[in-house]
Amino acid sequence: MRELELIEALETVLACDSPTVMRWLGDDAAVVRARGYAVTSVDTAVDGVHFRTGQLTPHEIGHRALATALSDLAAMGADPGEAYLALGIPAGVERGDVLELAAGAQALASQTGVTIAGGDVTSAPALTVSFTVVGWADDPGDLVGRDGARPGDVVAVTGTLGAAGAGLAVLDGRAGQASGDLREALRERYARPQPQLEAGRALARSGARAMIDLSDGLATDAGHIARRSGVRIELSLAALPLADGVAEVARELGVDPRAFAATAGDDYQLCVCVPESECRNPANTPSNQALREAGLTVIGSIVRGRAGVVFTDGDGELLGYEHSF
Amino acid sequence: MRELELIEALETVLACDSPTVMRWLGDDAAVVRARGYAVTSVDTAVDGVHFRTGQLTPHEIGHRALATALSDLAAMGADPGEAYLALGIPAGVERGDVLELAAGAQALASQTGVTIAGGDVTSAPALTVSFTVVGWADDPGDLVGRDGARPGDVVAVTGTLGAAGAGLAVLDGRAGQASGDLREALRERYARPQPQLEAGRALARSGARAMIDLSDGLATDAGHIARRSGVRIELSLAALPLADGVAEVARELGVDPRAFAATAGDDYQLCVCVPESECRNPANTPSNQALREAGLTVIGSIVRGRAGVVFTDGDGELLGYEHSF
Repeated sequence: MRELELIEALETVLACDSPTVMRWLGDDAAVVRARGYAVTSVDTAVDGVHFRTGQLTPHEIGHRALATALSDLAAMGADPGEAYLALGIPAGVERGDVLELAAGAQALASQTGVTIAGGDVTSAPALTVSFTVVGWADDPGDLVGRDGARPGDVVAVTGTLGAAGAGLAVLDGRAGQASGDLREALRERYARPQPQLEAGRALARSGARAMIDLSDGLATDAGHIARRSGVRIELSLAALPLADGVAEVARELGVDPRAFAATAGDDYQLCVCVPESECRNPANTPSNQALREAGLTVIGSIVRGRAGVVFTDGDGELLGYEHSF
Repeated sequence: MRELELIEALETVLACDSPTVMRWLGDDAAVVRARGYAVTSVDTAVDGVHFRTGQLTPHEIGHRALATALSDLAAMGADPGEAYLALGIPAGVERGDVLELAAGAQALASQTGVTIAGGDVTSAPALTVSFTVVGWADDPGDLVGRDGARPGDVVAVTGTLGAAGAGLAVLDGRAGQASGDLREALRERYARPQPQLEAGRALARSGARAMIDLSDGLATDAGHIARRSGVRIELSLAALPLADGVAEVARELGVDPRAFAATAGDDYQLCVCVPESECRNPANTPSNQALREAGLTVIGSIVRGRAGVVFTDGDGELLGYEHSF
């Protein structure tokens, strides 16, 4: 009965104030009033693989697991709707920590207008937090996949890169020379990534042709767009928007800061491909205003050639590492 | 890149022939054309907790994980739609076994008209198979929860009980006296449970007021209905429909066969509460025909009194064990 008691305790931590959720926790299934198209993604975080319980608070683990799942909805341009939580709990985990984890997810759910509407709880050898998230769209044409990039498109990213990777280096004890405030800011970027839901929707409405969230690092994730779209992506390392403190941490690690930002994962910013006409001339139309408000930095372009990702330095010279298929 | 290669291999095992699935595997999220109401449930199976890899083939593990998840949709009376697979794979598991597991799930998906439309693959310390399943309904009134049972309702179950528990006893080596054919039939009921999707829909259309699938055993699962409906459920042990071979296995285990059938889980049959008028007089109306075709056995009734489940013997005498809250 421990599982049942825990589920009942979870019901006191989680909240449902959505008029579209007709049946919430506590039945065989949740029932939700639908809109035209359901957009669904699953993201699983396992202790020792995707995070370490010693490095994050339970509240952060809950936040982070939901954030990484919602990030996939952001990358589609979907309106976030519901989340379903599959929790695997090893022996010895305190009930209070499980409820804190749920509270961390609930705080992000409340902030983003998401209802955690169901899930399950099981024993497991390692703490496992799997979120299935569902977003909605009225028309499939409102959504952006990975397969629509075309030669001539501009490639851009939201926000800044490298902060989560630098935060992880701080947590791992591999980097410690930055100031306490900076270390804490970097740690926060790793521990509490913010899914770019508003930016994703704005970009989708503004003519984005392909989009992906940056979970595994720009080099790898841009590769998914290159592969699915069948295009060659040329990115300028010099153009990457580095977060504060990334350069210091990268130098301490003995790596080039921009290469670090291109390959460190966990930033959960968006990489987007938009027609050049929408991006290079940002003053006049509402769509361009939306692009500007999404805080985009242009980092490259789609070119003709063999499918893959290549990086150039600031002078356009090709650099050694190339992801191709 | 091992994860990506595996996902690509999975794409060759899984199939999508649904006209409502607009985006399938391979993007940030799947996109599915919705109907009025989404019915969503999550079910996770962990090696060593819910099954043992040494006892089941990979194909059976995949079948069983999807079946137990779909069983929740059956218990709502929903039309099954899509499934999302979160796979956790420990080091040393062969790629071929992972694909066999996916093939087992796909075979059941094809049989039930379900599309496995997305998911994720991660490393994990134990083989973990989590399915989020989505069903659809045009009206929330078409669905049946756990909370609608009322005094006077008849309680019935589909199919036969105890077979999966007996099959597990055979697999565990706790029971070995039955004939080889019988042992294999019982093992099959444990290894490949059939979600009662058609029966669930027929029962929902026929006025079922509360319904649940039997995963943890009748005593526990009927308790969920009692608790959520705030009713007292009186069940007759003598009325339980035992599967062939259950009596032999139970006697070998030294337990009463009907008590075994009431408490052994994993049968994934449905327990349903229907108004007495719909059930006792089964000859005349289409709804009653549907109830008859669902293969129901009446096993008890909802009575006034303190919320809980009580069992009686064949003569209506109360037996010791009572689940109450």
